[in-house]
Amino acid sequence: MPVPTDPAARRTYELDRAHVFHSWSAQAALDPLVITRAEGCYVWDGHGRRLLDLSSQLVNTNIGHQHPKVVAAIKAQADVLCTVAPQHANDQRGEAARLIAERTPGELDRIFFTNGGAEAVEYAVRMARLHTGRYKVLSQYRSYHGGTSTAINLTGDPRRWPNDYGSAGTVHFFGPFLYRTAFHASTEEEERDRALEHLEQLIAFEGPGTIAAIVLETIPGTAGIMVPPPGYLAGVREICDRHGIVLVADETMAGFGRTGRWFAVEHEGVVPDLLTFAKGVTSGYVPLGGVAISPHVAATFAERPFPGGLTYSGHPLACATAVATITAMAEEGIVENAARVGEDVLGPGLRALAERHPVIGEVRGRGVFWALELVTDRATKEPLAPYGGTSPAMKELTAALLDAGVLSFSNFHRLHVVPPCTISPAEVEEGLAALDEALSIADKHTTAA
Amino acid sequence: MPVPTDPAARRTYELDRAHVFHSWSAQAALDPLVITRAEGCYVWDGHGRRLLDLSSQLVNTNIGHQHPKVVAAIKAQADVLCTVAPQHANDQRGEAARLIAERTPGELDRIFFTNGGAEAVEYAVRMARLHTGRYKVLSQYRSYHGGTSTAINLTGDPRRWPNDYGSAGTVHFFGPFLYRTAFHASTEEEERDRALEHLEQLIAFEGPGTIAAIVLETIPGTAGIMVPPPGYLAGVREICDRHGIVLVADETMAGFGRTGRWFAVEHEGVVPDLLTFAKGVTSGYVPLGGVAISPHVAATFAERPFPGGLTYSGHPLACATAVATITAMAEEGIVENAARVGEDVLGPGLRALAERHPVIGEVRGRGVFWALELVTDRATKEPLAPYGGTSPAMKELTAALLDAGVLSFSNFHRLHVVPPCTISPAEVEEGLAALDEALSIADKHTTAA
Repeated sequence: MPVPTDPAARRTYELDRAHVFHSWSAQAALDPLVITRAEGCYVWDGHGRRLLDLSSQLVNTNIGHQHPKVVAAIKAQADVLCTVAPQHANDQRGEAARLIAERTPGELDRIFFTNGGAEAVEYAVRMARLHTGRYKVLSQYRSYHGGTSTAINLTGDPRRWPNDYGSAGTVHFFGPFLYRTAFHASTEEEERDRALEHLEQLIAFEGPGTIAAIVLETIPGTAGIMVPPPGYLAGVREICDRHGIVLVADETMAGFGRTGRWFAVEHEGVVPDLLTFAKGVTSGYVPLGGVAISPHVAATFAERPFPGGLTYSGHPLACATAVATITAMAEEGIVENAARVGEDVLGPGLRALAERHPVIGEVRGRGVFWALELVTDRATKEPLAPYGGTSPAMKELTAALLDAGVLSFSNFHRLHVVPPCTISPAEVEEGLAALDEALSIADKHTTAA
Repeated sequence: MPVPTDPAARRTYELDRAHVFHSWSAQAALDPLVITRAEGCYVWDGHGRRLLDLSSQLVNTNIGHQHPKVVAAIKAQADVLCTVAPQHANDQRGEAARLIAERTPGELDRIFFTNGGAEAVEYAVRMARLHTGRYKVLSQYRSYHGGTSTAINLTGDPRRWPNDYGSAGTVHFFGPFLYRTAFHASTEEEERDRALEHLEQLIAFEGPGTIAAIVLETIPGTAGIMVPPPGYLAGVREICDRHGIVLVADETMAGFGRTGRWFAVEHEGVVPDLLTFAKGVTSGYVPLGGVAISPHVAATFAERPFPGGLTYSGHPLACATAVATITAMAEEGIVENAARVGEDVLGPGLRALAERHPVIGEVRGRGVFWALELVTDRATKEPLAPYGGTSPAMKELTAALLDAGVLSFSNFHRLHVVPPCTISPAEVEEGLAALDEALSIADKHTTAA
């Protein structure tokens, strides 16, 4: 992309290249897009272009960009009290905890606040290990749980590989994913049953008494938005109960409205022992994450100190942002909007695209949480880019989307359609039209072309 | 303490007890202080009392509470753009990186942003491991580096113990600390030389070619504010150079003005390969941390992806807060104030207290970063509380300070005097008077009583 000509945007670009070290990237060839402002489902780039944000950045701006009520709450709290140490009590911290506890399922009524999802997973695992007196933790291949040591070792994508020293106490298993079944299944029911049998067998051979926790994304996010078949989560819950294993539902990406419910576990009526959250809780306006804790796990730390913490646990400005975000989402029916848009417009629209575009191998998701599996051949399901990498076809596709005014989210051979929960049907249609155009280019890379 | 009678403060207290899970604590017996507002060096509690904040919360409000320029910057940026994904470029992120790079020593000119200090240490260690191709990391007993897996395993205080599974690749060594010398030394020079010899021997037996990094707090903070003898850091730098070991200076607590310089390494003229920061960079108004990276470590990730990251890396609202904080500190001479107050008022004042109070075994520090070593007997140096615990005497002391209108920071048998860098001589005198009163009570627990 050309460097912006606008002097301010040009300076932003140059300062970034001179001084900013970027996440998950080789630094030399980076060519970042300058983002200058944002509103609702749109962002503006350094060339002055308005882009429809189908990425929600990193799937975090569930309430859209710059929601006026949340911005007003940040400004109001900034005037009162920005920061306070975690050992004290503060009104915004208590109120945020109350509002979250009110929405988490079952009796997950105590909240440990962190700065983000990775730390939430770190501390959930710590609670589980000390609660059970066991060390080993199971997680899924095709998952992402964060960048810090324990979280990245739980992760089941290639970002784990350079961080993998074999001593983290993590073991990976396969979750249900019929489209690329690891179990030679042909129906969702068969996939579910065989995935549960696989997990049960793996636990038997690892030793049930050695396993502290099973950590899973309720719906795996960056790894592909694989909605589990009905009954799978209940089956995992039953296995955990039988073996005294702590079930940790990682709702960092799936939580706070993304799937059309406050939390994705609600779709299955399952109550985990610990639930981790981040992103949508403040839409990322101020960094915040946390762990919602069941009474029996909390009881472990009633008399015995919980050995974890951070300077900004329950940060007043972050908590005030959560209070405003949750309140606005409730007042404006934003979770319900995500459900309705997903069911009535976005889901049907993406399925209609699949009928026209041979490059789409599968459409899956719910709410505003959708993935298009892109393949060169529907019969062989050959991905449009290799696992862990990209391809000219995928680069062409994201460039075409940008040209068509869409900021997109792709991972390997997949395109994720993950707009804010506030998106309107008209904005969805705008996005679908851009996708239709760009996917025609991708179609040329298929055997059908 | 009685529960506040003011209805709003009472509700805050009750919501906290019902829903907030606290850092590093047994949850049942907690009795948190409600903090309702703050300004400069003062906070107000739920009983309406004004307290002089000699804790800077968790030693993070270097610029004082609610600095008007920083609050204004948060509000202005909230109106423009709160959040953007880390892969894009943004004006505040670039400008914050530039301002930090301008102040870090040597050529530490590239900044990887995190949410806080623990993550900064996690990612610094990752950079060092991949840069050297080695796994093992050395750190000091008597240190704190954060709560996440790698950071807590590097930590040299009892908070590591429940998190210690022996597989983290960390090895601990003793730093210089003449008052409780591990080296039977009798002068600072002897302590320095023997500490360096100890480190050199430990490296020889661990295997120099197995060690990726030495991570140390330039001045260990929570563990006791042990200012290293002149030449120690230069000695460690020389050892690292000789063995190809990455030197990571953790300036999470010592950085951004706390010691009367932007960074504590400046006192010794030492340039680390990586420098981690957090706390003071925004005074905690919005969570932010990071790693300043030398060109040779950055070059490792020029063509090869850096395998680490987080949703909020380079968060615009956090970076705007850093820009305003650094700018205000520079404009108002706040770092110079910390140096001057430390040299002219706080240091001499604490030393004068030591002359009157037998409970003070040693006074040490610089800038606004001071520790009082409290002992029952100056000859035996018996601590006023055991390592890793507290004591009736220490509880009495902190309660007496609260009664005298001071919010204090204590660790085991030590009282840390760590006010904002903005503190005035008059406020220091107010704090010293309260300390004088409270320490008289502690004196009763000494053999001199």
